[in-house]
Amino acid sequence: MKKLINDPKQFVPEMLKGIALANSKTLKYIPKYNLIMRADGPNDNKVSILQGSGSGHEPAHAMVVGYGMLDAVCQGDVFAAPPADYIYNTTKLIASKKGVLYLINNYTGDRMAFEMSQEMAEADGIEIRSVIINDDVAVKDSLYTTGRRGVAGNFFVTKAVGAAAERGATLEELEALGNRVVSVTRTMGMALSGCTPPAKGTPIFTLTDDEMEIGIGIHGEPGRKRVKLKSANQIVDELLDAVVSDLPFKAGDDVALMINGMGATPISELYLLYGYAHEQVEKFGMKIKRNYVGNYCTSLDMEGFSLTLVKLDAELEELLAAPAEIAIRTF
Amino acid sequence: MKKLINDPKQFVPEMLKGIALANSKTLKYIPKYNLIMRADGPNDNKVSILQGSGSGHEPAHAMVVGYGMLDAVCQGDVFAAPPADYIYNTTKLIASKKGVLYLINNYTGDRMAFEMSQEMAEADGIEIRSVIINDDVAVKDSLYTTGRRGVAGNFFVTKAVGAAAERGATLEELEALGNRVVSVTRTMGMALSGCTPPAKGTPIFTLTDDEMEIGIGIHGEPGRKRVKLKSANQIVDELLDAVVSDLPFKAGDDVALMINGMGATPISELYLLYGYAHEQVEKFGMKIKRNYVGNYCTSLDMEGFSLTLVKLDAELEELLAAPAEIAIRTF
Repeated sequence: MKKLINDPKQFVPEMLKGIALANSKTLKYIPKYNLIMRADGPNDNKVSILQGSGSGHEPAHAMVVGYGMLDAVCQGDVFAAPPADYIYNTTKLIASKKGVLYLINNYTGDRMAFEMSQEMAEADGIEIRSVIINDDVAVKDSLYTTGRRGVAGNFFVTKAVGAAAERGATLEELEALGNRVVSVTRTMGMALSGCTPPAKGTPIFTLTDDEMEIGIGIHGEPGRKRVKLKSANQIVDELLDAVVSDLPFKAGDDVALMINGMGATPISELYLLYGYAHEQVEKFGMKIKRNYVGNYCTSLDMEGFSLTLVKLDAELEELLAAPAEIAIRTF
Repeated sequence: MKKLINDPKQFVPEMLKGIALANSKTLKYIPKYNLIMRADGPNDNKVSILQGSGSGHEPAHAMVVGYGMLDAVCQGDVFAAPPADYIYNTTKLIASKKGVLYLINNYTGDRMAFEMSQEMAEADGIEIRSVIINDDVAVKDSLYTTGRRGVAGNFFVTKAVGAAAERGATLEELEALGNRVVSVTRTMGMALSGCTPPAKGTPIFTLTDDEMEIGIGIHGEPGRKRVKLKSANQIVDELLDAVVSDLPFKAGDDVALMINGMGATPISELYLLYGYAHEQVEKFGMKIKRNYVGNYCTSLDMEGFSLTLVKLDAELEELLAAPAEIAIRTF
């Protein structure tokens, strides 16, 4: 294993410490719960939004806490749901009078932990609603999931409800909005290589020099098929076809298009993929209103990418364009 | 070679096309010269800033064209300087009455091409000045360089002169500012793996499972030494010591600290590195006024990172904080 780490056991806390030190004015780090929260929260004029997740998907979720996005994250170990008591204690710390919205990627472990936390927090009188994110069209059930997996589409849910929360939307309104975003968001991914969790030290799976996995999950879960490597354009065609036919997207639709890197894919390749995907989406008759190219939801050092389409209406387009301030900034 | 590309010969133009399609309102792509320029340029009220470079370092330089940064880039092939006639034709397209500033990373091929272009453009009556960027402390001369190499510190030069140009600084003022930034910027990098240029198809160099290269260049040029892999903290200590002792930086200095990924390094590891580097820099007595964590100047799919320190004064700090709008956006 070649990684820029110290002790594998300290990988998550040392990463969280770095995030907090790089954002000392805006973020607070509470090591006890692997918790990153806004330094200015909670705010009783807005619903607090919490995501908890296994680590290894950065910048999701630990690096998108801030104005217009999440109020807090509590991280689990790499690819492991956060313990229910981390979520519960985080919930108490960030609870506002308007309530707390949980954004949960659809994995069995995450759902169980959040449900347990919700019961405990409700017993304390905190009002909670949840949105389950399941945008991955690749497989119906998977290794860690009943139903579809939540992957890069998570970004759009967070951005939309984050913007609406800043404007004072109620808990019920945010729950409905989140579910509406999920209902119009579809993703499929692929991998050129497996990823190596620090504590494991070896790749979760290996592919030969001419193989790729189509429909991969973000924890190395199997996808639809393992096939010979194809050209970038052929791969985009295949992912796009799966995504478009699933909703289905139609000619005339306004959309957001995302090319998301899996962690070790150079940004040059992501833009190359975007260029062809853009042309194909427009050729199909959809109109690209917003585009996203980069790493949003990764799988440690996996090489590969996913393609996400979101069907937009005027409200959703406007929410996605709203300002936000997060831990990762280019400038 | 496992890459998300089509024909290796089309790697650069297809990437540039993607950048342009993702930014169709703000950028213009002229395939003939591998040229990306601001759609609103040139502007006779500001100096136009041009960088040309080999490709493979994205987001530098092709993805940082925009308000407050570059007016244009013309790209060479991967790791190859752009031809002088690309630079010359780009210069003519973007020339403003206030002149054109060249930002040149210190590589023999780049310098020759820019000097030839400058001669031709000056014969046309265009006023030109150049800033040579050479922030890499690792080696004095290298495979492609007489003198020090220009690496991730390039970002700070671009950002500072880009901001000053928007405010109407003259060509002479920008040249002086650029040289001043270079004089206070120091970088050193390391690699866990070599990178694979698309046209070559195999890694430029290989490292065994327990080796790393300290002082690596951004084209796979040898660094200071090849040694056994160490812990993240030990590596930070080594790079930081080389950078600090070179200027030298002193207790009490205000600084900007950058942890720059080499292309395939997960952002989780970059933040982990940042956390420790931040602590060490503050322990040394320097004050971190601005921080940067992410991919700024890469080497295709190389794993590794570089550490940059910039000694700040009030003017430089303010210029680095000025607004900018570039092709790569997170949100």
